[in-house]
Amino acid sequence: MASLLHDFLAPDSIAIIGASADPTKRGFKAMTGLLKGGYAGTIYPINPNADEIMGIKAYGSVTALPTAADMALICTPAHTVPFLLEQCGEIGIKGAIILASGFGEVDKAGAKLEQEVLSVAQQAGVRLVGPNTSGFFNLHKQVNLLALDNVQAGDIGIISQSGNILLALALEAESNGHIGFSVYVGPGNQADVGFADYLEYLGEETNTRVATFYVEGFKDGRRFLEVARETSRHKPVVVYKSGSTEAGQKAASSHTGSLAGSYQMTVDLLRQVGVNVVENSDEILPVAEGLSLLQQANGKKIAVLADGGGQATIASDRIAEAGMELADLNDTTRHALRNVLFPQASLTNPIDVAGSTDANPGLLAECMAILSNDDNVDIVFLVGMFGGYGIRFAEELRQDELSCANAIISLAGMTDKPLVIYSLYAHVNPEPLKQLRKAGLPVYDSIEHAVKIMEALSERGAYIQQSPDIGQTTAVPVMPECQQLFTQACLHNRDLFEFEAKSLLRYYGVDLPRELVIRQDNDITTAVDSFGETPLALKVVSKDILHKSDAGGVRLNVCGDKAIRQARLDILDSCRRYSADAAIEGVLVTPMARKGVEVIIGMSRDPIFGPVLMFGLGGIFVEILKDVAFRAIPLSHSDARSMIDQLKAQKIMAGARGEAAVDKEALVKLLLTVSAIVVAHPEISELDLNPVIAYDDGYSVVDARIIVDNTIKY
Amino acid sequence: MASLLHDFLAPDSIAIIGASADPTKRGFKAMTGLLKGGYAGTIYPINPNADEIMGIKAYGSVTALPTAADMALICTPAHTVPFLLEQCGEIGIKGAIILASGFGEVDKAGAKLEQEVLSVAQQAGVRLVGPNTSGFFNLHKQVNLLALDNVQAGDIGIISQSGNILLALALEAESNGHIGFSVYVGPGNQADVGFADYLEYLGEETNTRVATFYVEGFKDGRRFLEVARETSRHKPVVVYKSGSTEAGQKAASSHTGSLAGSYQMTVDLLRQVGVNVVENSDEILPVAEGLSLLQQANGKKIAVLADGGGQATIASDRIAEAGMELADLNDTTRHALRNVLFPQASLTNPIDVAGSTDANPGLLAECMAILSNDDNVDIVFLVGMFGGYGIRFAEELRQDELSCANAIISLAGMTDKPLVIYSLYAHVNPEPLKQLRKAGLPVYDSIEHAVKIMEALSERGAYIQQSPDIGQTTAVPVMPECQQLFTQACLHNRDLFEFEAKSLLRYYGVDLPRELVIRQDNDITTAVDSFGETPLALKVVSKDILHKSDAGGVRLNVCGDKAIRQARLDILDSCRRYSADAAIEGVLVTPMARKGVEVIIGMSRDPIFGPVLMFGLGGIFVEILKDVAFRAIPLSHSDARSMIDQLKAQKIMAGARGEAAVDKEALVKLLLTVSAIVVAHPEISELDLNPVIAYDDGYSVVDARIIVDNTIKY
Repeated sequence: MASLLHDFLAPDSIAIIGASADPTKRGFKAMTGLLKGGYAGTIYPINPNADEIMGIKAYGSVTALPTAADMALICTPAHTVPFLLEQCGEIGIKGAIILASGFGEVDKAGAKLEQEVLSVAQQAGVRLVGPNTSGFFNLHKQVNLLALDNVQAGDIGIISQSGNILLALALEAESNGHIGFSVYVGPGNQADVGFADYLEYLGEETNTRVATFYVEGFKDGRRFLEVARETSRHKPVVVYKSGSTEAGQKAASSHTGSLAGSYQMTVDLLRQVGVNVVENSDEILPVAEGLSLLQQANGKKIAVLADGGGQATIASDRIAEAGMELADLNDTTRHALRNVLFPQASLTNPIDVAGSTDANPGLLAECMAILSNDDNVDIVFLVGMFGGYGIRFAEELRQDELSCANAIISLAGMTDKPLVIYSLYAHVNPEPLKQLRKAGLPVYDSIEHAVKIMEALSERGAYIQQSPDIGQTTAVPVMPECQQLFTQACLHNRDLFEFEAKSLLRYYGVDLPRELVIRQDNDITTAVDSFGETPLALKVVSKDILHKSDAGGVRLNVCGDKAIRQARLDILDSCRRYSADAAIEGVLVTPMARKGVEVIIGMSRDPIFGPVLMFGLGGIFVEILKDVAFRAIPLSHSDARSMIDQLKAQKIMAGARGEAAVDKEALVKLLLTVSAIVVAHPEISELDLNPVIAYDDGYSVVDARIIVDNTIKY
Repeated sequence: MASLLHDFLAPDSIAIIGASADPTKRGFKAMTGLLKGGYAGTIYPINPNADEIMGIKAYGSVTALPTAADMALICTPAHTVPFLLEQCGEIGIKGAIILASGFGEVDKAGAKLEQEVLSVAQQAGVRLVGPNTSGFFNLHKQVNLLALDNVQAGDIGIISQSGNILLALALEAESNGHIGFSVYVGPGNQADVGFADYLEYLGEETNTRVATFYVEGFKDGRRFLEVARETSRHKPVVVYKSGSTEAGQKAASSHTGSLAGSYQMTVDLLRQVGVNVVENSDEILPVAEGLSLLQQANGKKIAVLADGGGQATIASDRIAEAGMELADLNDTTRHALRNVLFPQASLTNPIDVAGSTDANPGLLAECMAILSNDDNVDIVFLVGMFGGYGIRFAEELRQDELSCANAIISLAGMTDKPLVIYSLYAHVNPEPLKQLRKAGLPVYDSIEHAVKIMEALSERGAYIQQSPDIGQTTAVPVMPECQQLFTQACLHNRDLFEFEAKSLLRYYGVDLPRELVIRQDNDITTAVDSFGETPLALKVVSKDILHKSDAGGVRLNVCGDKAIRQARLDILDSCRRYSADAAIEGVLVTPMARKGVEVIIGMSRDPIFGPVLMFGLGGIFVEILKDVAFRAIPLSHSDARSMIDQLKAQKIMAGARGEAAVDKEALVKLLLTVSAIVVAHPEISELDLNPVIAYDDGYSVVDARIIVDNTIKY
């Protein structure tokens, strides 16, 4: 499905509403911006008080135009916008950019006006950029409404919720000298067109090789995820999400009024759908550049080829810190390197040529070719002073370096592995590096940035490798018995009882320990018959008691008839003292779970991203360390697996504390089932399995809580 | 005490041993390097086969010189070095730089030669740089043995264990355009002069305002710490330590043969003595620059002044992530800002001027002055497009910006708070930014780097603030009773028993629970009388049983006469079955510790850094999360306090898990006592208090282990 934004954002004709010859007006700047930028399409100045502006015939209104322009740029104040949009709709203009501020970002009156603008636009069939947009450019169409000097047309598309961030990136690209942009849009208040629409558009826009976003807050995060899931299969999507801290969230909210949401959750969900999330602002452009030019990596095993020990060491540290590995080179590779390099060269990755290339830099290309042929290598990383041999050692090496650059360029064309290059001379940009850059091989001036790029390439590779699995989610048919549970709960205006939540899980195939509810004395005999001498847990069942332990409603390790009777009486007694009015249904009896690794699974419906599953280890891991993973529901098998593998506390799951390693596949199955249940039952507004005890042969759901959305009517 | 390196490394005369007119020789490069660099001192070429070299009178040997040169640069091969050093000593040359490789870094024969070189040098009274050095420069003396083009003389001194790292920094400085260096030395194999000597030298060297180190491995780490403790009081010391990961340590070791040691420990110890540790290689130069030009900060409360919401948000995130805070501005400040800025400006830090400065950039200096007057503010951080107003908005703003730059420069001269500046236009370097830079105010091109600099300034401020406490360590007189414990242990070739370790601690004033050893039946009665109904822990006492639990040598929660008897029998029985030959001294009885927060204290003697104390939380925090802190012994009060406050698990110590907050001062006292004990008793080779249970009113040392160094004789 083609985005509606194509004609609009690559306009062959533009109506400038409020065009002006007065240099203090926005309509003046827009005109000069287009003319200076060499716009080749038709400009229609709209101004009721002028026959021509800057030598171009002007019209009194858009309705007076001979034909509909592809785009209207509205430069007039906020209050004029609704009427102008009606006119745009009348003549058939498909899209308008609204520069004015004074809408929802200011006050309630502004928000009302924004709502009016939106409904007029929808009726008129006009799509909107803004209002309150920082502007727009499409450099391949020579439309540069920002009047930015020195930006080159290129392949990076940018959507930025801050105009100054775009400016910073443009200046960085200018200083870098070989990075260009395709389209920029400042989404402003996103009254109509939002991040998801822009992503859809950039995904299809042919000049754009990477879609890059600076986001302070998503409005319709769910749709962004859906579009990103598809887009990122064929085009890299880079997001810098601000608000990683409370301080940043406050700042963003005072800036754009955006809801920030949980940063870690946002990052997890974006990565789930193949987005490359960048966490430092000065990595946005280098990562976007790398992704636009280099192919993804099939893994995260790096071969480092260095002509300086210091840089080799730093590269090794950063690679390991990023969770990547130094490739274990095979014998053929070592043998081939041995034939090429000095005997004192270190052939254990990182490879230190130890002077072998000082008089013969061309060897670097040979070594890169050898390394790229090694099956254990996913990325070849050249680290050092390539490009500077002719400057540092001897003038005559320049020719050698140029040949070497050409050999590297040929190699890049032949191998399916990315070649990543860091050079001390990147700033100096000598001819060999210019050649590489001209051929589309980026040269980085920071080891740290180069490693971030490798990380992005291998993340992207992993996403594409799991491609067959993307969107392959488990669904379950709705069980009428379960539907009944919700109907009952709604009828009594309560949530599910623990035993109901558990029986719902059981219906859908979740393994659960046996349990029964003691409602009267007779049930105790059943319990004793059923569980024998197994130590039991007894818990109160009451819709009015949320925190069972606080109410004294829990007894653990209860054994045998007499003890059960006493424990039940104690519970009832405690709970009545805790809350005299509580309606007590009975006491739930279930065998004590044996020792294992405590995990928790939670589901909530995020206002921005919809239903989201959380997985983590219990106790301090979730309470203090916040070591949890999030995925948007529904989950694929890869999603479930990766959310378990993402936790930092892998050692615990691998059996560090005297426990056996947990059965991850059983947990994967459990996560997928929960995901399917949430999809099947929109009535579930929250779900918590806390704790689940994971074993080497399955798990035990110790407690289950399901909160019911009472707004759903039957 | 003045460093011996002064004359040597700022030489008025240099003897080039192996000077040559043959361009392929090192002695040629050294000569041309000096001549091209405009060296004003006297050059003495030494070559037995030439009367003159490059027009300069040559000598057959150093002994033929009319007078001793300040420095000898030895360009000849390794095997010639010992004889040449003898000659240097004869004529009274104080120092030699040995370029040749082929020493300890290569093989055993090389190591032997290196040892010979060192002993000849020591006999001859000649200090050595190298061998295997990457070279040396002193730009204020126009000595540039690296023949680096385009490096400016400046105030950053560098010692780098990798020549290519120096090259990278020099190229980065060249591209930056306004950073210069004082002295560089490649320490090479550090046969004689090592990192600590270079630090001492740079600390005194008057052209150097910051001493910067790239270190792969320390040799004499202890001395480096001692020198750094003093140097960093008056001059910033910056260290990048490579080998933060196992991969990096391996790479470093294959590169320099250095022992890496624990990275985290090294970082902690360096910070303890006021060193600014940099963790990314592309932050070395910006941080060194910032520390050389800006005064330290008296705290970590930042006022952010921004003209772009995006950058304000990013800055806020990075500041919070770095553990710093956005300053809470006082009313006077807000009022003053309100008078200057547009009503829509956000006056809650980060301050967003919201267009107020678009036509009037001069306001930025006014706002900075207002912010610098706020007592709650430690650093003023200007973030945005300053310098670019004249480019982006209107030509005529350039003059305004120049005045603003001058006002900022004046402000910097008047306030004692650092002004840190990030500009989108840093790359472009327009006139206002040039002015700032010329006046010694750095302008950063990355928010991330600027925040690192602020972090460094406030770390440095904190070190200087604790200055009265630096080196104020607790000492204790050696107790003869304790000495006796070690004598006994050595005599029997064993470590201290747990009860001995505890009684030693008790002698030195550590609070310890009562305990006694049951050696025979009668002692049980004493125990019962002594402890009554308190639940007790019983533990075997045997020099042959290291892991008491494994041997079944521990019984917990034992209550009353009968149970004690039984537990003792069980323990003896289990232990005999575990190890029939174990000499069992008895069973230790002590009350069970009540619940609290489990911490551990450990001491070991590091081969590089000497005695080091470790502090951490018990259980998964130390086992899995490695959340521990290290300090070199002896500790000051600030050291002890900061090592507790450094742990990430502050929430646990603040009472997160239903416990009361721990009594940190009691732990500080305990750490100081342990430090003093370790100083008093060199016989202690390892010490472990694990666990110590911390309470809101003290602590309980549950287990103590002291390993005795049997090489110390009595």
